[in-house]
Amino acid sequence: MARFSEVPGRYQVRDLALAESGRHQIRLAEHEMPGLMALRTELGPSRPLAGARITGSLHMTVQTAVLIETLVALGADVRWASCNIFSTQDEAAAAVVVGPRGTPDDPSGPAVFAWKGETLAEYWECTLQALLWPDGGPTLLLDDGGDATLLVHQGVRHEAAGAVPATPPVGDPEHSEEHAVVLDLLRRSLADDPQRWTRVAAGVVGVSEETTTGVHRLYQLADAGDLLFPAINVNDSVTKSKFDNRYGIRHSLPDGLNRATDVLIGGKVAFVVGYGDVGKGAAEALRGQGARVVVAEVDPICALQAAMDGYQVARLDDVVDQVDFVVTCTGNRGVVTVEHLAALKDKAVVGNIGHFDNEIDMAGLAAYPGVRRTELKPQVHEWTFPADPATGRAERSVIVLSEGRLLNLGNATGHPSFVMSTSFANQVIAQVELFTRQGSYDRHVHRLPKVLDEKVARLHLDALGVGLTRLTKDQALYLGIDVDGPYKPEHYRY
Amino acid sequence: MARFSEVPGRYQVRDLALAESGRHQIRLAEHEMPGLMALRTELGPSRPLAGARITGSLHMTVQTAVLIETLVALGADVRWASCNIFSTQDEAAAAVVVGPRGTPDDPSGPAVFAWKGETLAEYWECTLQALLWPDGGPTLLLDDGGDATLLVHQGVRHEAAGAVPATPPVGDPEHSEEHAVVLDLLRRSLADDPQRWTRVAAGVVGVSEETTTGVHRLYQLADAGDLLFPAINVNDSVTKSKFDNRYGIRHSLPDGLNRATDVLIGGKVAFVVGYGDVGKGAAEALRGQGARVVVAEVDPICALQAAMDGYQVARLDDVVDQVDFVVTCTGNRGVVTVEHLAALKDKAVVGNIGHFDNEIDMAGLAAYPGVRRTELKPQVHEWTFPADPATGRAERSVIVLSEGRLLNLGNATGHPSFVMSTSFANQVIAQVELFTRQGSYDRHVHRLPKVLDEKVARLHLDALGVGLTRLTKDQALYLGIDVDGPYKPEHYRY
Amino acid sequence: MARFSEVPGRYQVRDLALAESGRHQIRLAEHEMPGLMALRTELGPSRPLAGARITGSLHMTVQTAVLIETLVALGADVRWASCNIFSTQDEAAAAVVVGPRGTPDDPSGPAVFAWKGETLAEYWECTLQALLWPDGGPTLLLDDGGDATLLVHQGVRHEAAGAVPATPPVGDPEHSEEHAVVLDLLRRSLADDPQRWTRVAAGVVGVSEETTTGVHRLYQLADAGDLLFPAINVNDSVTKSKFDNRYGIRHSLPDGLNRATDVLIGGKVAFVVGYGDVGKGAAEALRGQGARVVVAEVDPICALQAAMDGYQVARLDDVVDQVDFVVTCTGNRGVVTVEHLAALKDKAVVGNIGHFDNEIDMAGLAAYPGVRRTELKPQVHEWTFPADPATGRAERSVIVLSEGRLLNLGNATGHPSFVMSTSFANQVIAQVELFTRQGSYDRHVHRLPKVLDEKVARLHLDALGVGLTRLTKDQALYLGIDVDGPYKPEHYRY
Amino acid sequence: MARFSEVPGRYQVRDLALAESGRHQIRLAEHEMPGLMALRTELGPSRPLAGARITGSLHMTVQTAVLIETLVALGADVRWASCNIFSTQDEAAAAVVVGPRGTPDDPSGPAVFAWKGETLAEYWECTLQALLWPDGGPTLLLDDGGDATLLVHQGVRHEAAGAVPATPPVGDPEHSEEHAVVLDLLRRSLADDPQRWTRVAAGVVGVSEETTTGVHRLYQLADAGDLLFPAINVNDSVTKSKFDNRYGIRHSLPDGLNRATDVLIGGKVAFVVGYGDVGKGAAEALRGQGARVVVAEVDPICALQAAMDGYQVARLDDVVDQVDFVVTCTGNRGVVTVEHLAALKDKAVVGNIGHFDNEIDMAGLAAYPGVRRTELKPQVHEWTFPADPATGRAERSVIVLSEGRLLNLGNATGHPSFVMSTSFANQVIAQVELFTRQGSYDRHVHRLPKVLDEKVARLHLDALGVGLTRLTKDQALYLGIDVDGPYKPEHYRY
Repeated sequence: MARFSEVPGRYQVRDLALAESGRHQIRLAEHEMPGLMALRTELGPSRPLAGARITGSLHMTVQTAVLIETLVALGADVRWASCNIFSTQDEAAAAVVVGPRGTPDDPSGPAVFAWKGETLAEYWECTLQALLWPDGGPTLLLDDGGDATLLVHQGVRHEAAGAVPATPPVGDPEHSEEHAVVLDLLRRSLADDPQRWTRVAAGVVGVSEETTTGVHRLYQLADAGDLLFPAINVNDSVTKSKFDNRYGIRHSLPDGLNRATDVLIGGKVAFVVGYGDVGKGAAEALRGQGARVVVAEVDPICALQAAMDGYQVARLDDVVDQVDFVVTCTGNRGVVTVEHLAALKDKAVVGNIGHFDNEIDMAGLAAYPGVRRTELKPQVHEWTFPADPATGRAERSVIVLSEGRLLNLGNATGHPSFVMSTSFANQVIAQVELFTRQGSYDRHVHRLPKVLDEKVARLHLDALGVGLTRLTKDQALYLGIDVDGPYKPEHYRY
Repeated sequence: MARFSEVPGRYQVRDLALAESGRHQIRLAEHEMPGLMALRTELGPSRPLAGARITGSLHMTVQTAVLIETLVALGADVRWASCNIFSTQDEAAAAVVVGPRGTPDDPSGPAVFAWKGETLAEYWECTLQALLWPDGGPTLLLDDGGDATLLVHQGVRHEAAGAVPATPPVGDPEHSEEHAVVLDLLRRSLADDPQRWTRVAAGVVGVSEETTTGVHRLYQLADAGDLLFPAINVNDSVTKSKFDNRYGIRHSLPDGLNRATDVLIGGKVAFVVGYGDVGKGAAEALRGQGARVVVAEVDPICALQAAMDGYQVARLDDVVDQVDFVVTCTGNRGVVTVEHLAALKDKAVVGNIGHFDNEIDMAGLAAYPGVRRTELKPQVHEWTFPADPATGRAERSVIVLSEGRLLNLGNATGHPSFVMSTSFANQVIAQVELFTRQGSYDRHVHRLPKVLDEKVARLHLDALGVGLTRLTKDQALYLGIDVDGPYKPEHYRY
Repeated sequence: MARFSEVPGRYQVRDLALAESGRHQIRLAEHEMPGLMALRTELGPSRPLAGARITGSLHMTVQTAVLIETLVALGADVRWASCNIFSTQDEAAAAVVVGPRGTPDDPSGPAVFAWKGETLAEYWECTLQALLWPDGGPTLLLDDGGDATLLVHQGVRHEAAGAVPATPPVGDPEHSEEHAVVLDLLRRSLADDPQRWTRVAAGVVGVSEETTTGVHRLYQLADAGDLLFPAINVNDSVTKSKFDNRYGIRHSLPDGLNRATDVLIGGKVAFVVGYGDVGKGAAEALRGQGARVVVAEVDPICALQAAMDGYQVARLDDVVDQVDFVVTCTGNRGVVTVEHLAALKDKAVVGNIGHFDNEIDMAGLAAYPGVRRTELKPQVHEWTFPADPATGRAERSVIVLSEGRLLNLGNATGHPSFVMSTSFANQVIAQVELFTRQGSYDRHVHRLPKVLDEKVARLHLDALGVGLTRLTKDQALYLGIDVDGPYKPEHYRY
Repeated sequence: MARFSEVPGRYQVRDLALAESGRHQIRLAEHEMPGLMALRTELGPSRPLAGARITGSLHMTVQTAVLIETLVALGADVRWASCNIFSTQDEAAAAVVVGPRGTPDDPSGPAVFAWKGETLAEYWECTLQALLWPDGGPTLLLDDGGDATLLVHQGVRHEAAGAVPATPPVGDPEHSEEHAVVLDLLRRSLADDPQRWTRVAAGVVGVSEETTTGVHRLYQLADAGDLLFPAINVNDSVTKSKFDNRYGIRHSLPDGLNRATDVLIGGKVAFVVGYGDVGKGAAEALRGQGARVVVAEVDPICALQAAMDGYQVARLDDVVDQVDFVVTCTGNRGVVTVEHLAALKDKAVVGNIGHFDNEIDMAGLAAYPGVRRTELKPQVHEWTFPADPATGRAERSVIVLSEGRLLNLGNATGHPSFVMSTSFANQVIAQVELFTRQGSYDRHVHRLPKVLDEKVARLHLDALGVGLTRLTKDQALYLGIDVDGPYKPEHYRY
């Protein structure tokens, strides 16, 4: 088997022969993504994205395939990379490249650069490929976590400075393997074309960002006055953050744990770090499987919510030796330290479903004296801490999923289609807004108006058999709102 | 038994002899209201409300007694009325008037005008009494539903016009019994003192409002440019709307249903109208008791949430003949019509836990041809629809709670202390803000800053044994926030 | 107000004027008790209990009133006492005595001897009155906890011995206040009529017993060969123990806690002692209200069930200082000791929903040095432990419900009608079996055949809108069972 | 790749090279199976099964590998087949054959004949191989579903008759493909050795049976007087039926659905056929994922339980067009007919988690005019019903899992280790009982004594951190039981 199906600059995926299997899954996913399909029906004929060049950096799954093909149906030209080294479903990537009407021998779909199990260097090279058209850069970015946006912004900054700074040496607190890879890539780029990113940035009319972490970065850029183009914060649409983050995790967390380990969840102690939307979904899923859930929080409001929802709220330090499962849901770094890992129950399962792989201190774990790593199967590793004769403590091990990266994507197939349909309908609407209403959005971070949020919800009701009640005119008048919405003030929290 | 314990202008309650029982309950409630007690400890010594005259219009319960005595501990002079004709706990009202150190023969507490079972005329007279000091009006309003604010604003408007408009006649769609009472009161007031409300309004430095309905009115006033003083929207503090509205209802809804009817909830079909915070708490409580919950919604986002939470979402029309319990949670009017009432299962139980008594069409019910009303016990009435020989339909009845007013207050004792402690801590903080920072708030509707919201949460953690995790400095830096909060962006939804 | 409405030997209740209110509640309860009403329809015409004299010893609630009137509708003559000093609903007792067609001035219903708040001496005198007809004793006993059965058996034993033994002195481990009362009563009886109980026992053709504790006593009597007449164990019908014990408690436990204390359950730590059917219902109810539930068990199977259902399982000693609520559900004695009570969180709420008042060591509590008892309201007492200067421990208190007796009956109104309809339909069927099939049951403890258990269930399906699937003949053949049941082997556990 | 790793008569599995991966999983499973490991520790030294030859017919999973190696550790000689054509985990089968101390080149473990995806003919040949030692038959059977027992009993019957009856022709209601395979096998056997099964049966000292369906067959044999050796009903140990059946399904049902389809469960309508222990676990799991669960039942007691647990109870016919998922949990046949399948929502997912593949009418489906079967991936098939021009009905399809066989085993890896540890600890104890106490059990179906059931539970408490409360002597005396159990009467239902 060749390592890849690849045409340089055109696509690079695992194997185009997987396309048929991927197409079956896409077809089923379309049935589960009524929001995207309704947008194709509504907007397809007018092709509002005709002329748009979209670079996507978002987990290359079956659901993303339906998103990509929706963007294409609306007229866009698309290039895509995944935003996580483990999250690509190779059959989906293949099917997108082949396209609904192409064949593996004559692929006619968009350009995809993604496979499951990339190295960090490969990952960033794929991101680069997705950003560069043969004759220029993208009009729009569609980002998840902000890596495409980051590459453009860092490229521009270094081009302005005329130099890429030196990589901090290993051991320096600023050093990270990934940071080093990015600096190398930009150093080569600068040598190759000292204005590449400046030109790319100038052509971008906006970015729509999928997730908490990427949005956080965007607000930091905007606050500093450094944001180079308008951004739409899709994450904070209600139909994104309150659906994908919560209900998606509720589905895909136990799915990931089960596929990875087959360990019974019921009756066990599951420790959930963070009680935001993701943590809420995680806790609900684990309780629904009969686990006793303990939650950690830094925010007193979320902590109080967790308590009122019936969960014990504790610091990991205080209960670490009772814990069977640890799931991180924070977007923060170092929430599970190597000391925690060493103190957990023997064979505890540890995974991250937040965002980056620094939630669990994987670097610290790898550096722990005498620790031993055994691959049980891909994306499932047993890390064994040596016995300590001094304390009489026996050898013990923990099972770490997806090397500390998103376990629902690394160990399972990510969120199910239906919940991604709400997220991705927001993405499509955001892309159309940015492209068709250029000039209406300034270089800040914007959210979609509530009425579009409500529209996304509305597109998903029939599939669930929901009978929506309609306000009478009298009632609408009494409430001082329109019969067709928006129904709530902006600050409403749902 | 005398009808009332009363000293005109000083207090009017059911019976001061109830004070001892009320004091016991207040003492226990203090234990359950750590937020208020912490504010007494923190702010009591500096007496930030010294010189403030506070008129409260808020359910005169045991919990409100702890609120009132906290305001007094911070230096305020207080007068109080209830904001619902059924919601007063007479022993709490008595205990407040008597005061912690007074006796029924020598009461030394604040002025209270409230008893369980007021008529509408009595209700508004009590509100009037609470607004009028022997020598003027209040500095601050503390409102729940906005009736005190309404009286001041309507008074000012009619004084400006020089006349109170005629009461719309019975049968006119604008007519309501309550509206007529208010117009009468203002008519007498205008005759008595044509500048009373204009002077009162001029003395008010602000109002803090407790609930959705009152806030809605405030935004309407502010949007029209008619708001006469600054307002703080306490309802939309997270620690209010996401706690009191949800967790308070979760507790007090089944409590009210049980005390009213003793009817098994498990196995029954419970129909919840509205899936906002109140509806979410109601649905959770009913499911927790084993009911099968069906939800109605007009907002597609909330409807989709209900579906994703596992509830059937349907229009009441479509399932009305399967329904054993109906609970309205909307703040809207006419959500249960008399046609619905007539079509429910025989002996279905119907109650409102939203706000006003027009959620269920009580007027339409009373006007239904041949309907018969039987008082089963106070606040529990069976309404019997006559048999219909034409259709062969047998006589059937529904049980209506609290005459369509808030069932948790009318049939039980309202929200429990702990959850009111989060709400009322926000109220106290809002009152202190309005009074000590006069000039900082303009004539609009304001929300408390997030850091104060987080403070309220923090005051309630120890009582629940919550172990809060603390950010490291590195983590705070990584997240770009302060170690001590605020932890979330303003738009965060919890 | 006279202390009682009373005609010696005919009835003794609180006040016959309460009958109208009681009748309303009975009418509503009839709607909720489809099993009993169906039995009236099915069996009423043939009057299978004509000639039967039934003595009932069972909580004199509204639901029991429907049971009593069902027995009467089937032809029986009935006398009744409650089986708990606090569990009578005085309006139900009055309504039964008055009867559906009588008036308070001309009562025409069965003889009832019961009121809320009996002393122990009054309680046993009522039991005696219920057992003695003007001209003899009962044909049938209908018992709950076995007190009527106990009185007959002890009476017979002492009559055989010719003497009642001396009462163990206070301080003797065998001494209990209740035991002393019973011995006194029997001593007087023996003096009065040395063969009374021997004659009574000879006339009894059987007893049907309602609850775990009474059944346990019956098996002990039968195993010792001392059972004087046949017994039917109603408690272990599936439609009793798996419904009343579980779903009844799920309803009435939070109801009792709420009416007693108004303390928020959500977010608190609730400790449930025992995870049998009652404990399972208790834990579900508390979790449904957002409490964090911790369970104690002695049986490893039930302990493992609790763990698998997601509850922490711990000894009370190990977590006592974190506990806000303690609920005992064991049928065992001394499961909460005075040491536990003294170690709970300040103002913890403690109640028993198992059976006897010795689950919580009330005697030990009363004897605790320096302890202080304050009545907050009837059936709600604060017990304050003095400060201990030696340890620096501050004064603290616990709230004890119903003096350690069943809190759902003492603080609320017991189980709701619907669930009692399943229990009581079993009782009626058992009484009919014992009376019409005398000779078929020997002097042991029997259970009703499964097909009657299934019948009881079947009578309750329509009211809940259940659409039962019917086996095809082929399916029944395949399974080797009859289309109409029974559907399961005897050992099936449901 | 060779089709199999195989040594005739010694083993036949997919690939011995999978043994290393299987051994990793076995090692992790041992950690999760404290019951089996404790029995190795307790009983291993005395080797109570020395001399026993055990034939197992039970899903050849990782957990079964730990069971097999426990039996070996207790001295037994073992041969094994799976009891389902899809349920083998090939790496587990390989690891067992290789043995903990063997290598793929020099396997030293027990004989296994099993692989994932057997044909029916292969399946029964494997069963035959497991039953025949080079020099005779087994001493003990360990059965799941009763196929090994069936083969022995049918063999004996036909040998007694001297002939195997003719296979009913296709189209005959008695015909089934599987029945035909068994008759062929026995026909060959009879030709080969006319006394084989008579000799085998004579050597069997007993069988322990794992599951409802097999137990049902055993009771039928015993009732007819045809049971050839004693049987222990392991299924009805509490620690089996109330754990494996319920909590195992709770885990493995969503796991199977997710791996098969990736379709969101939340918000969907899931129809659960049967509300026994398996159905209860299924409904809990689906609700825990946010589905709206509708239950079908034939038994009114179970139907009433489902209603009281808050589920809608309906016939499939009445709601079929609203259903997104159907899961059969009955042990009955034909509970989902082809008419149901054709009437479901488009792309509904249908699977069986009961026992045999006739719960869903797969034969009827295959025979439906114009139906089309598409393999989406192994064990996941889309069946497309043609459009019907007559009614205007569009083409629609359903997704059928594992060809109607157990989806948790066919689409996932079956129950997790921990819950199988309780089941399999019962199996080991049953095998030891049958072998060491030959003569104590007659030719009927027996259950293990309660104290052994409690022992199995006890062995699993520490792993879950359960703190078991211990009765005091006084309490045990009061309850009339032993401090060490058994704690409940035989009829107790848990």
